[in-house]
Amino acid sequence: MNENKYPVVGHAHDPRFLTLRSLQSPQGRSRTGLYIIEGIRHLARAVEHNASIESVFLDPSVLCNSFGRKLARRLCRRGTPGIQLSHPLYRDLTLASEPQGIGAILRQEWTSLHELRARPNSLWLAAESIESPGNLGTIIRTAEAAGAIGIFILNRDCDPHDPATLRATMGSLFSQKLIRCSLHEFTKWAKSNGISVVASSPAGFMDYKAISYRFPAALMIGSEKRGLSGQVLEVADFVVRIPMHGGCDSINAAVAAGVLLFEMSSQQHDSLQAPCSDRQLCHCWERDSASSRVRL
Amino acid sequence: MNENKYPVVGHAHDPRFLTLRSLQSPQGRSRTGLYIIEGIRHLARAVEHNASIESVFLDPSVLCNSFGRKLARRLCRRGTPGIQLSHPLYRDLTLASEPQGIGAILRQEWTSLHELRARPNSLWLAAESIESPGNLGTIIRTAEAAGAIGIFILNRDCDPHDPATLRATMGSLFSQKLIRCSLHEFTKWAKSNGISVVASSPAGFMDYKAISYRFPAALMIGSEKRGLSGQVLEVADFVVRIPMHGGCDSINAAVAAGVLLFEMSSQQHDSLQAPCSDRQLCHCWERDSASSRVRL
Repeated sequence: MNENKYPVVGHAHDPRFLTLRSLQSPQGRSRTGLYIIEGIRHLARAVEHNASIESVFLDPSVLCNSFGRKLARRLCRRGTPGIQLSHPLYRDLTLASEPQGIGAILRQEWTSLHELRARPNSLWLAAESIESPGNLGTIIRTAEAAGAIGIFILNRDCDPHDPATLRATMGSLFSQKLIRCSLHEFTKWAKSNGISVVASSPAGFMDYKAISYRFPAALMIGSEKRGLSGQVLEVADFVVRIPMHGGCDSINAAVAAGVLLFEMSSQQHDSLQAPCSDRQLCHCWERDSASSRVRL
Repeated sequence: MNENKYPVVGHAHDPRFLTLRSLQSPQGRSRTGLYIIEGIRHLARAVEHNASIESVFLDPSVLCNSFGRKLARRLCRRGTPGIQLSHPLYRDLTLASEPQGIGAILRQEWTSLHELRARPNSLWLAAESIESPGNLGTIIRTAEAAGAIGIFILNRDCDPHDPATLRATMGSLFSQKLIRCSLHEFTKWAKSNGISVVASSPAGFMDYKAISYRFPAALMIGSEKRGLSGQVLEVADFVVRIPMHGGCDSINAAVAAGVLLFEMSSQQHDSLQAPCSDRQLCHCWERDSASSRVRL
């Protein structure tokens, strides 16, 4: 079967187009438990991680990338329903500046707290309240790169399936567990699973690098404007501080998440050092055995 | 003198309003060497760092914050020219979702490469090509927080005075030197000032944490889509890699800049560890003397 066999939708009042449109709003996503993704990379990662793809939508006039077309054919062959949107309808729907002509409707997959166990050496992230959808997406992408297992969403207004959030994740949502619960439920779960809860605050007593983190661990991330709430700082096992220079009193929430997660991840994984190239070796003039760093 | 003495501008064709409007475009900024900032925090930081403020613009109907009003009075008293914009004109001009009713025209301040010397222990940043103005602003904000002295802009299309960039800097532009030059000029300057040039790439041989950085140092940041060019990787003294987990092959450019800059900054400053509180002390059960970390 060829993806060109998908029925063509050309009218803005077609219920199939209206369904796609409705999933761009929080109400539509919440009512149906569905969401949409767009772009070849996102769809490829959804397929790779066996995400629940309900249907695909294409704009054949734009989908010229050979890998993208292969992906569409594969989904069509395995019986995934789909539609072809007319070019104006696809343009009307897409948020991308350079649309790739392929997207999908997926079912939201939330993990229940009751069925969740923390592996001994695992790393988690808990978002108390992130205002910017783009920031939330960047944090989710960073969390995957740092090796986080799952992300707790502690605020009803935080929507990881918002189109702007999904764009910024670059497809990183599918490999991580997603849990929605209250702060109280999270801390109860963390306690019963021996998770050390790490919060950061300008008022934190300890430099984030002065700590050897104990795993399993969860990093808490708070609002861009207000940081973490007093309630979170109260329940956290450790409140760390990122030292700032100049007149800065804060950095972007996604950057802070990156700085903290990669420090935690590095301690967690104790990654092996790759051998130096000849070019780099000639710059290495002292090996610091205490910290196993190569001094340049 | 009271800031209410500033003349009122109510017509969209008033040359003073047209000047403000023109500075929102790259052409207007480039032709005049001026730019605009907006918001109390930005203006306060500009005053703090003696930035070249040419004139201020206000919307008294919105400027209700007492610190903001004080700032406006101070600038008025010291003879800074200004205008009061009518509410519709201010609304038309502002990019803020919650405008604070105050902004200013500033003169761009670029440092010439010829007059620039690198202090022995200093940290620098060089942006080869950042596509997103917001990302560039976040990187500038992160650089200040990590203690960078100055930022090299190596690409004509990178504009640190773009309104979206300035918003994301949160006022961090004023404390850092800003230098525009070519990659060739930068590398020549770096060599003659004993700067070690650090680049990052997924193909880098060394984990970014496995290196003891040699200062003065400059971190190179490349395009969000393509990373650093082959030319930069060729001239860099060290090419490091941020290890990624999951299916990730990259992270956001501003997050990567944060992870690398804070690692370099931490090694540069060797910051002293603040004493633990009683609550935290009870979690500290082992002190790792080799790395002077507190094990939790």
